Amino acid sequence: MEADKGMARVVTEEACRFIVDCLHAAGANQEAAAQQAKLLIEAEKLGHPSHGMNRLEFYINDILSGACDPNSKPTILKETASTAWIDAKNVLGATSSHFAMDTAMTKARQTGVAWVVVKGANHFGIAGYWAQKAADQGLIGMSFSNTSPVCAPTRSKEAALGTNPFSCVAPGSSGESFYLDMATTAVALGKIEMQIRKGEPIPPGWAQGPDGNETRDAQLAFDTRCLYPLGGSELTSGYKGYGLGAMVELFCGILGGSKYGHYIRAWSHESDGTPADLGHCFVAIDPNCFAPGFGDRLTDLVQHWRNLEPMDPNLPVLAPGDKEKLAAAKSDETGTISFVPQQIESCLALAKKLKVKPMECL
Amino acid sequence: MEADKGMARVVTEEACRFIVDCLHAAGANQEAAAQQAKLLIEAEKLGHPSHGMNRLEFYINDILSGACDPNSKPTILKETASTAWIDAKNVLGATSSHFAMDTAMTKARQTGVAWVVVKGANHFGIAGYWAQKAADQGLIGMSFSNTSPVCAPTRSKEAALGTNPFSCVAPGSSGESFYLDMATTAVALGKIEMQIRKGEPIPPGWAQGPDGNETRDAQLAFDTRCLYPLGGSELTSGYKGYGLGAMVELFCGILGGSKYGHYIRAWSHESDGTPADLGHCFVAIDPNCFAPGFGDRLTDLVQHWRNLEPMDPNLPVLAPGDKEKLAAAKSDETGTISFVPQQIESCLALAKKLKVKPMECL
Repeated sequence: MEADKGMARVVTEEACRFIVDCLHAAGANQEAAAQQAKLLIEAEKLGHPSHGMNRLEFYINDILSGACDPNSKPTILKETASTAWIDAKNVLGATSSHFAMDTAMTKARQTGVAWVVVKGANHFGIAGYWAQKAADQGLIGMSFSNTSPVCAPTRSKEAALGTNPFSCVAPGSSGESFYLDMATTAVALGKIEMQIRKGEPIPPGWAQGPDGNETRDAQLAFDTRCLYPLGGSELTSGYKGYGLGAMVELFCGILGGSKYGHYIRAWSHESDGTPADLGHCFVAIDPNCFAPGFGDRLTDLVQHWRNLEPMDPNLPVLAPGDKEKLAAAKSDETGTISFVPQQIESCLALAKKLKVKPMECL
Repeated sequence: MEADKGMARVVTEEACRFIVDCLHAAGANQEAAAQQAKLLIEAEKLGHPSHGMNRLEFYINDILSGACDPNSKPTILKETASTAWIDAKNVLGATSSHFAMDTAMTKARQTGVAWVVVKGANHFGIAGYWAQKAADQGLIGMSFSNTSPVCAPTRSKEAALGTNPFSCVAPGSSGESFYLDMATTAVALGKIEMQIRKGEPIPPGWAQGPDGNETRDAQLAFDTRCLYPLGGSELTSGYKGYGLGAMVELFCGILGGSKYGHYIRAWSHESDGTPADLGHCFVAIDPNCFAPGFGDRLTDLVQHWRNLEPMDPNLPVLAPGDKEKLAAAKSDETGTISFVPQQIESCLALAKKLKVKPMECL
């Protein structure tokens, strides 16, 4: 595992303990801290470190600056049998997202489907976590979030949409599931950072330079923060990715009345105390309301894909979510999470700043 | 307008009359024929001729072979306050889709959202038509369809998913709207046909050759029928488009119990009498159940995008759906539709075969 070279390993419970302690020291109550920690740990386990420990400092800064109010309580502003409009009241993302997805699941069990939209929210980590929460209870789950603008609508020189991720998770039979969690940009900024570290150019279709043209220069792409939507340029149907990101915004900020599109703040390590006021959307669907045999068909489908003849025998065809499941299984087996050295250093600095017991590495 | 060179123009009502006459001559009742004709005409007006008159012969052949039963009636098999599972009973796509979207809209007005899944369906034309139907009544509409397999899951040599299109349309204020109608493949086969006609290679990221590798040869790509999902190869995140197409299948065949994925028949001019048994999904959401001011925010958003500085001053940034709206306005202005000569010839042959008055060109 090339990626593990030079990495520091930490027992999963210890990493979780550290996050809880930090959030608690910053002012969050124990439950809020524990829920947010579990969310970050899950991202690490699934192989998405950009949404794991890496985010902790952002959350801490938002709490310390007053941009986030971790001990408030989300409230339902309006509801029908199958919908709810919720004010997150600026709590941590995990707190409002548990509240919203619980609301959606309860309603979906009664009416078959529920659509819940949240305003006044903070970053909710990996979108898949929330869809998985519904799938764990036999429902199809979906989640959507708007984010700070880093994506250029097709033909535009400037960014005006976020990476606007969404997720859909559904339970199959025999322990199978369908797991999709994707940003609607071609790639996330983290992938460009990795090319910088490797000293390699970025592939075509990832990002624009300051003149709006495609760039292969990783550093320029990172500094410009103008990602292509999924599909790349207009020639390769990037307008579909743009439409997809726009649809996510429709379900989040436009339905929810939070900040949206170009109005969303840039998110950095320095919080100026302005709340994020993000919009989220959560959907739960009860597959029992439709044709019997849902789980078996789903399992048949994902297993068919895995058995397709691959172009390269060393790279088997995967079902959506297989990569994440493999990463999680590996992490569970060792009971540890691996971190890059820079992450360990940040955690040490954070421990010092918050007067918290540092995270112990193996 | 380069595309209009050598095209034949037909008064819109005359084109519609011709479709109705053909479907009626093949055996469809007047209402079914009229609904299907309106659907095809709308595709022509919006600039998507692949889903317009071009499809008529397929529908006719399916009726004549007994694969489609245009005079049957869709029925609700199971329902809750916010969901319905419908058997299309193999009627024409427009008949079952009106029935299903009407069901969704009625339920959404009562509970805020509705999720309706259809099995036993035939091709429903452009997905946007059904989402627009809801948007015309102040709701957010979505529609999804599975299709015959022509798309290779990432890393696979073989196709196993359809172009699996979906649509989302939402009404803004001041006459604006959000209109997204997209296949989840990088491009549709029709775009590859156009490159063949122009004698030009296809761009990277569109399609695979028989060895599974990317091809630039338009004829080879067309014959192989192994399109890349949106995003192209694995390097440019094609697995996201694959996941997206898979999600559409989840909502259609997997929820609905119709044929799905690799089980869906190939669709050609020669129908062997086997019903298509496609799966469709229709969603309606009432924006009034969420934050007030939905329409104004939506309008602000699409207008902001249009005003972004474009890379090329001659190619202004478009909001999703602007291309379709411009095409429809042009068609409405002249009251005509333009067809390529091959299409006119097919219509003549069809008129002869069905003993119907030929379509009159201007």
